[in-house]
Amino acid sequence: MARIAPLSGFPEWLPQGRIVEQHVLDVLRHTFELHGFAGIETRAVEPLEQLLRKGETSKEVYVLSRLQELDEPGRPEREDKQLGLHFDLTVPFARYVLENAGKLSFPFKRYQIQKVWRGERPQDGRFREFTQADIDVVGSGDLPYHYEVEIPLVMAEAFGALREIGMPPVRILVNNRKVAEGFYRGIGLEDVEGVLRQIDKLDKIGPEKVGALLVDECGADEEQAKACLALAAISGSDASVITEVRALAESHGAVTELLTAGLAELEALVVAAGERAPGVVVADLKIARGLDYYTGSVYETVLVGHEQLGSVCSGGRYDTLASDGKNTYPGVGLSVGVSRLVSRLLSGGLVTATRAVPTAVLVAVSAEETRRDSDAVAAVLRARGIPCEVAPAAAKFGKQIKYADRRGIPFVWFPGEAGHGADGGAPGAEPAGPAGSVKDIRSGDQVDADPATWEPPAEDLRPRVVPAASPVR
Amino acid sequence: MARIAPLSGFPEWLPQGRIVEQHVLDVLRHTFELHGFAGIETRAVEPLEQLLRKGETSKEVYVLSRLQELDEPGRPEREDKQLGLHFDLTVPFARYVLENAGKLSFPFKRYQIQKVWRGERPQDGRFREFTQADIDVVGSGDLPYHYEVEIPLVMAEAFGALREIGMPPVRILVNNRKVAEGFYRGIGLEDVEGVLRQIDKLDKIGPEKVGALLVDECGADEEQAKACLALAAISGSDASVITEVRALAESHGAVTELLTAGLAELEALVVAAGERAPGVVVADLKIARGLDYYTGSVYETVLVGHEQLGSVCSGGRYDTLASDGKNTYPGVGLSVGVSRLVSRLLSGGLVTATRAVPTAVLVAVSAEETRRDSDAVAAVLRARGIPCEVAPAAAKFGKQIKYADRRGIPFVWFPGEAGHGADGGAPGAEPAGPAGSVKDIRSGDQVDADPATWEPPAEDLRPRVVPAASPVR
Repeated sequence: MARIAPLSGFPEWLPQGRIVEQHVLDVLRHTFELHGFAGIETRAVEPLEQLLRKGETSKEVYVLSRLQELDEPGRPEREDKQLGLHFDLTVPFARYVLENAGKLSFPFKRYQIQKVWRGERPQDGRFREFTQADIDVVGSGDLPYHYEVEIPLVMAEAFGALREIGMPPVRILVNNRKVAEGFYRGIGLEDVEGVLRQIDKLDKIGPEKVGALLVDECGADEEQAKACLALAAISGSDASVITEVRALAESHGAVTELLTAGLAELEALVVAAGERAPGVVVADLKIARGLDYYTGSVYETVLVGHEQLGSVCSGGRYDTLASDGKNTYPGVGLSVGVSRLVSRLLSGGLVTATRAVPTAVLVAVSAEETRRDSDAVAAVLRARGIPCEVAPAAAKFGKQIKYADRRGIPFVWFPGEAGHGADGGAPGAEPAGPAGSVKDIRSGDQVDADPATWEPPAEDLRPRVVPAASPVR
Repeated sequence: MARIAPLSGFPEWLPQGRIVEQHVLDVLRHTFELHGFAGIETRAVEPLEQLLRKGETSKEVYVLSRLQELDEPGRPEREDKQLGLHFDLTVPFARYVLENAGKLSFPFKRYQIQKVWRGERPQDGRFREFTQADIDVVGSGDLPYHYEVEIPLVMAEAFGALREIGMPPVRILVNNRKVAEGFYRGIGLEDVEGVLRQIDKLDKIGPEKVGALLVDECGADEEQAKACLALAAISGSDASVITEVRALAESHGAVTELLTAGLAELEALVVAAGERAPGVVVADLKIARGLDYYTGSVYETVLVGHEQLGSVCSGGRYDTLASDGKNTYPGVGLSVGVSRLVSRLLSGGLVTATRAVPTAVLVAVSAEETRRDSDAVAAVLRARGIPCEVAPAAAKFGKQIKYADRRGIPFVWFPGEAGHGADGGAPGAEPAGPAGSVKDIRSGDQVDADPATWEPPAEDLRPRVVPAASPVR
């Protein structure tokens, strides 16, 4: 085979790295299910016209052609029949809700863990293919505010459960569109979207340049620009942040009904988060989220100490997730960038797996003629939930132990009387009974054992995902 | 949104169906890990040139283009840079092995569960997007025969574990390329691939037409054609099938070294399978597998009673899974067609889930002001691993019970003293203590309970996947 090389932007992990990723996915799924979210998957493709409704990412869509069509001149299928790979899980979920509205119960809580694709040039940690893990709650007609509190708290719980594997803490930054819009309108700025777009650039270009852009692009005067920047500078994790925003708005005579409504929501979120996930959720008034479909809470999440990685979990409230003309479906959701997160955990040397295989026990083979004895031992162990494999060949026991050692398999089982002559066996080991003996190849300890009763220590049963001493990939 | 309609060939399930699919995937993963297979994922795309190496499926490849390229005249990227979606998991696995050979330990046992795509016209149950679950063992340089025995027995175990949810039994049909080739050459036929291709059509067009094709297309005379058909007619699940083949070969003076070697392998498989998975594995000499890269055992799997569905799990031994010029990597593997299987389980009304959500308990809300009390009860239950959600609104209890009922949630929790007035509460229910009371909405039984100690019956903790009374989707 020619030209075997990684494709830039399409990450893949070695088996040990995949164990880390799988653990992250398992923790997310488990947490989502504990909160009553039902799992769904949608097809990987959507009609191009659906994907292009979100203008700003349209250029990143991968379009599919069947190979035989490429041989024909011109584009044989009309654009409305063309299919593209989804670039997020929100567009397909909105379509799924409309398609199945009659068969779903609302409010509908769903999680969805799938790959998405973006055809952008790979750069600074951006992937062309990556896994997202989304939760959303969608209502029919209306959706109570308390779900905007619940969604980030579910994620806080999931991230909390990942702390023990060595993942750094997260900070979930929250804001509310009503606060921003209410404030901007209160000080006399009408181009709310324009202002949000500029405020979104604060981390990249700083307040001075954003201030100039607000004047140049959004029709703000110097004082209005200053007020916007002052609002964006406010952050905090308790109710005092609400007081601060209200004081700022009062000082500009900018207290609108919308602002007041937004502040009440933001306060409810900050207070509930302070009780249920202390220290995780921070109100940060500069969080804008570029996309114009958010209408209430907006969220971004940074890994503490890895802020330059960007947000690892973003989302918000949208009053119109989907609409079929008759019915409107408001939603609120958050999306974890699993690949971005796992990539950092692995390449940053933060997290590793204790071995590269699920196997806890390698059953040795003393001669090919007795392989079925080894198979029988393995079958008994497996029936009791102990992952094991049988040695590939009846090589010298030293070589079989090496096979286990290379993979991090902690135990080698010597069936029947094989234990007697085990190469490298502990000198004081008892002669093995008919059921055989099992050696912990890390300590060298070897004991007689019966596959129907022997158990490995619980921490050795499966590979564990733990803080890493050094980078793995 | 316009034109919301399912795309033919791209299956999606409602949440209840997805629970069935997820269960099937969990059972497969669990079984594979018990046998020491390490999970990997590969990217969804491969360079087109890699995908086109398997000539016969080349026309089914979906080719990707970035949307902005489509606006430019002509095809901007040369073909060797073009990417296509993988149509199976074998091609990407072979590439992964070559790319990472230095970092893997051989023999390398891996499982891989991912979507694949084929751009063919959807018809008779064929999908354009579907999930495969593959296991393969790949060696470096050589790979012992016993893995050809192990692979179908792992699958037999996985399918066996699915019997309890209502999946019909499977029959794994096995053959050996060496037997077929040795026999054909022994009777004087040289076009082995051609003969295999015709034999592969037996189920579709019957022995008469296949016999004619052997004569017309493969240079066989009448007697040779009859001998091929006689071989293909042999099947059985014990060693007598070996005797039968040998007798047929002897009667044609067709006992070659290759045939003898193949029969020894086939016998080892049939005997081991008879011991370890009685009644599941059947030697069937007509199994040909159209693809020319198989070199030893070949496998197909039918659902008993659903044979017309085609094979739900196929594969075999290939002496050259991958090669980089210096090293050759032989492999043996099997691939489960998960979507085909699950589609039949659901649409055939064979299997269902006991509810559509993971939730075991709905915590009621008596007034929005006391929602935090309900949240607190839910948090205590979740900390103990009990999936629960809090009611969407402080509606009348009857309406909250209906919310649970519609989703199949078995229990409703009334926090604090709320239990007193529970609409529809059992007349004899004790007044609730401060911790509240919990109602089994199926029986109407309501008892005082403390979220720190109450447990639902184990069978209600999560949705179970069970034999269905009627079709679900």
